[in-house]
Amino acid sequence: MNHSGFDAWARSEQAAVEAALDAWVPADAPAGLGLAMRYGVLDGGKRLRPLLVLAAAQAVQGQREAALRAACAVELIHAYSLVHDDMPCMDNDVLRRGKPTVHVQFGQAQAMLAGDAMQALAFEVLTPDEGIVPPALQARLCSLLARSAGHAGMAGGQAIDLASIGVPIDENTLRDMHHRKTGALLQTSVLMGAACGSLSDSAWQSLSAYGDALGLAFQVVDDILDATQASETLGKTAGKDLDNNKPTYVTVLGLGAARRHANELRDKAQAALAHSGLHDAAW
Amino acid sequence: MNHSGFDAWARSEQAAVEAALDAWVPADAPAGLGLAMRYGVLDGGKRLRPLLVLAAAQAVQGQREAALRAACAVELIHAYSLVHDDMPCMDNDVLRRGKPTVHVQFGQAQAMLAGDAMQALAFEVLTPDEGIVPPALQARLCSLLARSAGHAGMAGGQAIDLASIGVPIDENTLRDMHHRKTGALLQTSVLMGAACGSLSDSAWQSLSAYGDALGLAFQVVDDILDATQASETLGKTAGKDLDNNKPTYVTVLGLGAARRHANELRDKAQAALAHSGLHDAAW
Repeated sequence: MNHSGFDAWARSEQAAVEAALDAWVPADAPAGLGLAMRYGVLDGGKRLRPLLVLAAAQAVQGQREAALRAACAVELIHAYSLVHDDMPCMDNDVLRRGKPTVHVQFGQAQAMLAGDAMQALAFEVLTPDEGIVPPALQARLCSLLARSAGHAGMAGGQAIDLASIGVPIDENTLRDMHHRKTGALLQTSVLMGAACGSLSDSAWQSLSAYGDALGLAFQVVDDILDATQASETLGKTAGKDLDNNKPTYVTVLGLGAARRHANELRDKAQAALAHSGLHDAAW
Repeated sequence: MNHSGFDAWARSEQAAVEAALDAWVPADAPAGLGLAMRYGVLDGGKRLRPLLVLAAAQAVQGQREAALRAACAVELIHAYSLVHDDMPCMDNDVLRRGKPTVHVQFGQAQAMLAGDAMQALAFEVLTPDEGIVPPALQARLCSLLARSAGHAGMAGGQAIDLASIGVPIDENTLRDMHHRKTGALLQTSVLMGAACGSLSDSAWQSLSAYGDALGLAFQVVDDILDATQASETLGKTAGKDLDNNKPTYVTVLGLGAARRHANELRDKAQAALAHSGLHDAAW
């Protein structure tokens, strides 16, 4: 797919994800909870994880309804983690995607509940009536998502992040943190999409390696952007990792080495994708 | 089952649940996260929800492994909600089951992450390899649990709770709040256990009515205890609803009417259970 073809595809899929989230995140949940949930997930972000789910699903001719649900479920998990991460007891951030963060807008208690309800909603979206998505696929998607969101994945990575504030850490610890904190959900996005179709064990392994390298590359680039871009460009508070005294690829490796590492990881991701045999399908 | 028979059964099942949670809640999750998760769920409480799951499963000759996983998953959701509910931005409680609350022991950020990871773990426990629990049952259990935990259930009830502090509410609003906040997860405990076996639609409806009445009765009794018992007896801070200016069945109905209502709900629960035809099996 060429560049403008990708852009058109991405815009179309972003619109599909937005419409599905709009339908599935309830405005009428009680006492303003639905409004806080919708504020936290609608109309924001590049929808990178949903795009990974949908691209992988298309590469394996996966079931569309299941893939769209998987895409929204992954985004709900990502969005809830941002809501909780922004709270005063964590990163204490007031700006996200150019808007006040959820706890600034709705209060801390409602923000915590909204995040909790968004995580539950991810699993609701994955488990519709069995006529809509086959139960075995529902179970597989729930299994992948729960493991990437929990202690072995995203939440575990955030715990390492929390423990590493102001502490000098080496590249291995930094990599482990990011593998869990950001990489796990990105890798799982690819695998959830792939699970919506059928593919060989070997292609599954290659896609898993692709998601792994991509996830880490994403974090290295995020660290580079945090250190080099202005808040207006990012739509969030820039330089906050430095301000919070958090280790990043830029502080641990230096800017030049971080850029080289990002390039290496991109090459690794592309090689794994080529090896999967799915490269020419939709990617 | 007579009284001493029930006690022996409950003790045996509580031990089974404790052993399973001990095995499934990982001590080695990174950076102390596992310790906070285990602190929040192990060695505490009456395990009422797991007992409801296991009793219902036994009444329908349900699959033991699936029922034990469902029991632990429900308890993980209940325990995570307590961890988050106790935090300063919510109830700001320092004592739970006779111990310092999780955020007092581990800090607010770790408590929030531990709660988040416990919710994810609930869905991990429900989705083991397909040889262990049939995928269709995994999907059914995830569906029931997610819906009772989320905006339409527990989290929604907590949002109403939050919005009703210091606000005069009537019995209908109070009932709606408790139906969601506490009732949904208790009712779902019964239904998840029942889902582990097979039963008629009519028996399912009766069990659902049983769980509904039981869940509400539980909350009325909890409100009565909160107003009348000392902290040492409860193992948590007594009178906190009054101190927090929260409406309860005692403040809305008065103590005498609350006691009569608890008795009515008990009778309703027993009638529904008798109607299910499962009364003589294991209950």
